Amino acid sequence: MSDDATAFVPGHITGFFSAHPDDDPAVAGSRGAGVTLSHGVTVTVEPAAEAVVSLDGETVEMEPVVNVLQALGVTGAVTAESELPLGAGFGVSGAMALGTALAANAVFSCGHSENELVTVAHQAEVEAGTGLGDVVAQARGGMPIRIDPGAPSHGRMDGIPARPHIEYVTFGGLSTADILGGDTTTLTAAGETALDALVEKPTVERFLSESRQFARDATLLTDRVEAAIEDVRDVGGDAAMAMLGETVFAVGTGLSDAGYDPKQCRVHPAGATLQSE
Amino acid sequence: MSDDATAFVPGHITGFFSAHPDDDPAVAGSRGAGVTLSHGVTVTVEPAAEAVVSLDGETVEMEPVVNVLQALGVTGAVTAESELPLGAGFGVSGAMALGTALAANAVFSCGHSENELVTVAHQAEVEAGTGLGDVVAQARGGMPIRIDPGAPSHGRMDGIPARPHIEYVTFGGLSTADILGGDTTTLTAAGETALDALVEKPTVERFLSESRQFARDATLLTDRVEAAIEDVRDVGGDAAMAMLGETVFAVGTGLSDAGYDPKQCRVHPAGATLQSE
Repeated sequence: MSDDATAFVPGHITGFFSAHPDDDPAVAGSRGAGVTLSHGVTVTVEPAAEAVVSLDGETVEMEPVVNVLQALGVTGAVTAESELPLGAGFGVSGAMALGTALAANAVFSCGHSENELVTVAHQAEVEAGTGLGDVVAQARGGMPIRIDPGAPSHGRMDGIPARPHIEYVTFGGLSTADILGGDTTTLTAAGETALDALVEKPTVERFLSESRQFARDATLLTDRVEAAIEDVRDVGGDAAMAMLGETVFAVGTGLSDAGYDPKQCRVHPAGATLQSE
Repeated sequence: MSDDATAFVPGHITGFFSAHPDDDPAVAGSRGAGVTLSHGVTVTVEPAAEAVVSLDGETVEMEPVVNVLQALGVTGAVTAESELPLGAGFGVSGAMALGTALAANAVFSCGHSENELVTVAHQAEVEAGTGLGDVVAQARGGMPIRIDPGAPSHGRMDGIPARPHIEYVTFGGLSTADILGGDTTTLTAAGETALDALVEKPTVERFLSESRQFARDATLLTDRVEAAIEDVRDVGGDAAMAMLGETVFAVGTGLSDAGYDPKQCRVHPAGATLQSE
């Protein structure tokens, strides 16, 4: 058992998805596509008498993280620092769950494989209702395409071979639990149509155009998001909405060119990883 | 079509493996485990009237690279710069094949997915007889465990969740084609035993101990490699032989501590990736 361990988990913006619930949380998940970000969450775990979770210096209730510690049978203090806001479509809760799994496995010498740790984090996130596909995407990195739903032993993944710069602005949050807990029939039909189109032509341009179409068809587009996407399109850029948040992301300098003051980052080339010893 | 594109592919040292030939080069491959390195190969592709391949400034014959260009239906000049020696167990030929696939897809707007490009490079390497498992490992990064042989649609992978520093020394090359072209029965039995043991406990220590046992059981250990591994063990370090080369790799500072003058790098956290635009 070492004193502590730290993992970095990239943020993940989903462009479109379909929801695939199942009684088995390793089988449940989403299909869809997104982009992992060089902005992410750094998670440190150290042994402690009781489970305590903090995010950016504040103690927080974070059910997926508590679920991960319980599944691994360990008790630790989890300290997370995030470059991304919580609840705005960046997969921060999934990142905290996955980072906790990787770091706790190292600290407590649990002896699990990477797939096992991804599975633990995916199940924890599904059971908490905070996400369906972020964890497996964040474990992979790049621009992940989730061909099948579920944890690694169930889901197949692919990726778009491109590493553009990414800009994003956030106007506010949307509740993943509320949307996933409601009727997802329309959303899922739109997500499956978008996935078929992307698999046919796995390019950045196709990903953005299908993401835009999905936001409209799934009736998730808000006025502020729609206006910002239009502003980017008006200056010749390409943008879409992050699922699920009032967040707009663009490739290259689309949002800057349209007069916004976005955060700037890159597609992250790697999945979640322990920091080098 | 852009002017050129560049990809970085990490080196890959296999610790142990079993050979699984098949008439279909996407199904053929190896099972086993290894470590990807932050030292690797940078591959640039640009359009050209005929296929030309260079490695560190010298024009070379490189069948896997030519196979990749043919499979993609493009003609280009491939320029590779390698931090690692060719033919000494670092997966340089696999890196050149995979880097060519990623970069050529970007230059010529071929529109393939990442899995498709990994498949093209894996098939090219298998058909050339220069490797069986490096390409899929290099596409994944980290410390890859190849659970099943073959390209992404056939092979399942997992990983050891650890990122130690790595040292290595090379005394010379071994011919992958000669060894894979001979009787691999003993080697494959030893590799499957090692894989079962690693899957049971996917840690760095188990990986190294099983790799050492494999080198002995597969009768691939040379005197110089055996002596260097013993030297590292004598100072309390952990080392094994790279398959297939007269190369010793150690975690941490094992080779330095034993008085060698090794190259030093890290486990690479990412798979092969295009350089950011």
